[in-house]
Amino acid sequence: MRTVFWQDHAVRMIDQRRLPEALEVLTLRDAPAVAAAIRDMAIRGAPAIGAAAAFGLALAAQSSPARDVAALRSDLESAAAILRAARPTAVNLGWAIDRVLRVVDEALGGVDRSLHRIAAPAPDIPDAPDALRALVLAEAERIADADVATNRRMGANGAALLPDVATVIHHCNTGALAAVDFGTALGVVRAAHESGKQIHVLVDETRPRLQGAKLTTWELGQLGIPHTLIVDGAAGYHLASGQVHAVLVGADRVAANGDTANKIGTYPLAVVARENGVPFYVVAPTSTVDLAAPDGAAIPIEMRDPAEVTHIGGSAISPAGTAAANPAFDITPHRYISAIITEAGVVRPPFDSGLRAAVDRAVDMVDRVDKAVDRVDR
Amino acid sequence: MRTVFWQDHAVRMIDQRRLPEALEVLTLRDAPAVAAAIRDMAIRGAPAIGAAAAFGLALAAQSSPARDVAALRSDLESAAAILRAARPTAVNLGWAIDRVLRVVDEALGGVDRSLHRIAAPAPDIPDAPDALRALVLAEAERIADADVATNRRMGANGAALLPDVATVIHHCNTGALAAVDFGTALGVVRAAHESGKQIHVLVDETRPRLQGAKLTTWELGQLGIPHTLIVDGAAGYHLASGQVHAVLVGADRVAANGDTANKIGTYPLAVVARENGVPFYVVAPTSTVDLAAPDGAAIPIEMRDPAEVTHIGGSAISPAGTAAANPAFDITPHRYISAIITEAGVVRPPFDSGLRAAVDRAVDMVDRVDKAVDRVDR
Repeated sequence: MRTVFWQDHAVRMIDQRRLPEALEVLTLRDAPAVAAAIRDMAIRGAPAIGAAAAFGLALAAQSSPARDVAALRSDLESAAAILRAARPTAVNLGWAIDRVLRVVDEALGGVDRSLHRIAAPAPDIPDAPDALRALVLAEAERIADADVATNRRMGANGAALLPDVATVIHHCNTGALAAVDFGTALGVVRAAHESGKQIHVLVDETRPRLQGAKLTTWELGQLGIPHTLIVDGAAGYHLASGQVHAVLVGADRVAANGDTANKIGTYPLAVVARENGVPFYVVAPTSTVDLAAPDGAAIPIEMRDPAEVTHIGGSAISPAGTAAANPAFDITPHRYISAIITEAGVVRPPFDSGLRAAVDRAVDMVDRVDKAVDRVDR
Repeated sequence: MRTVFWQDHAVRMIDQRRLPEALEVLTLRDAPAVAAAIRDMAIRGAPAIGAAAAFGLALAAQSSPARDVAALRSDLESAAAILRAARPTAVNLGWAIDRVLRVVDEALGGVDRSLHRIAAPAPDIPDAPDALRALVLAEAERIADADVATNRRMGANGAALLPDVATVIHHCNTGALAAVDFGTALGVVRAAHESGKQIHVLVDETRPRLQGAKLTTWELGQLGIPHTLIVDGAAGYHLASGQVHAVLVGADRVAANGDTANKIGTYPLAVVARENGVPFYVVAPTSTVDLAAPDGAAIPIEMRDPAEVTHIGGSAISPAGTAAANPAFDITPHRYISAIITEAGVVRPPFDSGLRAAVDRAVDMVDRVDKAVDRVDR
């Protein structure tokens, strides 16, 4: 089952707040419900919330009473604003929304096709709202399908970097649940495992929301990949032991210079990995690369509810009234990153030129796929 | 109220597993009960468990049916073995036990007084077990009283290093609860606060047992010292912000070269502090310095129950059967430590010579106190 998908005129998604206790699937019928699910972290993970937002626009298109394409375009813009505001750090959210809106605008004749990186095969310009509705849904489906293919390519690219027998540290959750399917950093683990390598994962529990303890352990268990849960503070102990071969993390936004925003706790992990000569790999699709952000200082960091820190599982762990700070992400400066593994290849320092080249290669790859699809259609 | 004390022929101690929900005082009547309380962490913190073990020997002396001093000495040795095995990393446990046994042996005429670092005023050699029983209890009381005085001296020494307005990061709990009273690293915060400095403490929650979230917040609240709870992984975010003036931690054992064993998560904190030019201070009495351990590799690291990682507050956070590793401490190599704050002064690199000198100064300080007491007695 995919993490998020379209079925019977609704968006369906695994409710990640209920795992590992229960595997429940939510059914959402309008864009504000999707925005709420993203904000409340029923769905999380940069690629996953990108796909969810795209499907949210498909819901907005479907539920819009617009009788002409201009009114429908306006309703989509309103829904986009709600979805875009759900969470600030992961750039995939805005990336997916922009992509859908640009395909719409292109179809309406207003946008040069070359301006958007990944485009649907140019459709006939729709003369009725229903054609536009279909176009939006098709583009959301394309984003979801492309995510899975992208993750498999990242998995293969990253797996090649791991030894045949390896212990890796992994932070947060970057598996199938963090994407549409397969995963980013955990996709690398999965690809290595599937290729016959013996991978053991030290799973950071990842306070405050415990995505490692709850989601990553669950996914690795399903896949039969050996793993051991540790508290976040214990990663240094293991890195210093000489028994860890790599650290693998995902990303919520990669700036043009390689500075990377990811789940809180990533930055100290990177510093301690470098201190111990352990490679630190960021695994992220080019959709997570924000060339408009020159460096980490340009990335907004979401501050979440202090209750995520003062409470665990609904119970207070600290005295009533205790103040808490809850930055959800930190910035890992590029100098601590050994390589950024994308679907368009492994980027090593200097990241500036390498990331631009990877983004360009990704566009070329999609163009080639589009042309192949066009040929098959003909 | 002191964390641990002697009252009505029993050892009484605050049950730290119940805080912050409830302030409960345990009453323990034999040495195995004290060993269990240490092992189960009803009492924790290197100086606190040292004092508790000394009082445990007083219980063993009291409950021993021995009719001669040799038999009593033998019963004390048996109790010492049980207490010593309760936890392996904090050297204060063995230090306090050795100190009591040496005072006993000295009283029995077998030990050169100059061999032990801190000695009670030489008593008359007891010719009856009851005199020896009284001697053991008196030495335990001396250890407890000395701990409080030591902590106040460390507090003053450390407070002088902090700016008048300072934000500090603190890991685990090192307050009055981790000692007999006042505390070590948190004693520095308290002394600075009492001297009029404006100290704001960023409190690492300190998984797995959450001593920061449960105990340090509670103590700081009682003292009226401003504080903000953070998850352990967020310390790097704050260190990189440029808003933190120092990191303060305690220690469970300091090797001769300055390598320091302390609560899991201390080492990454030290690495990231140095990376950001933030001073990293270890606050520990000379009783925590183990000159017999040449470096960190000689310090045993306790591995605790994996259930402390897989469960929080009795509830599982990960799928049933998830494997977990739970090292309770890590080693911070001395090169990351700016200074070690002891009761006998602030030791800066090179630590080898400085720590030896501090230990010598501490013995001299006690000798001076002893002579002063002798003069008063005369």
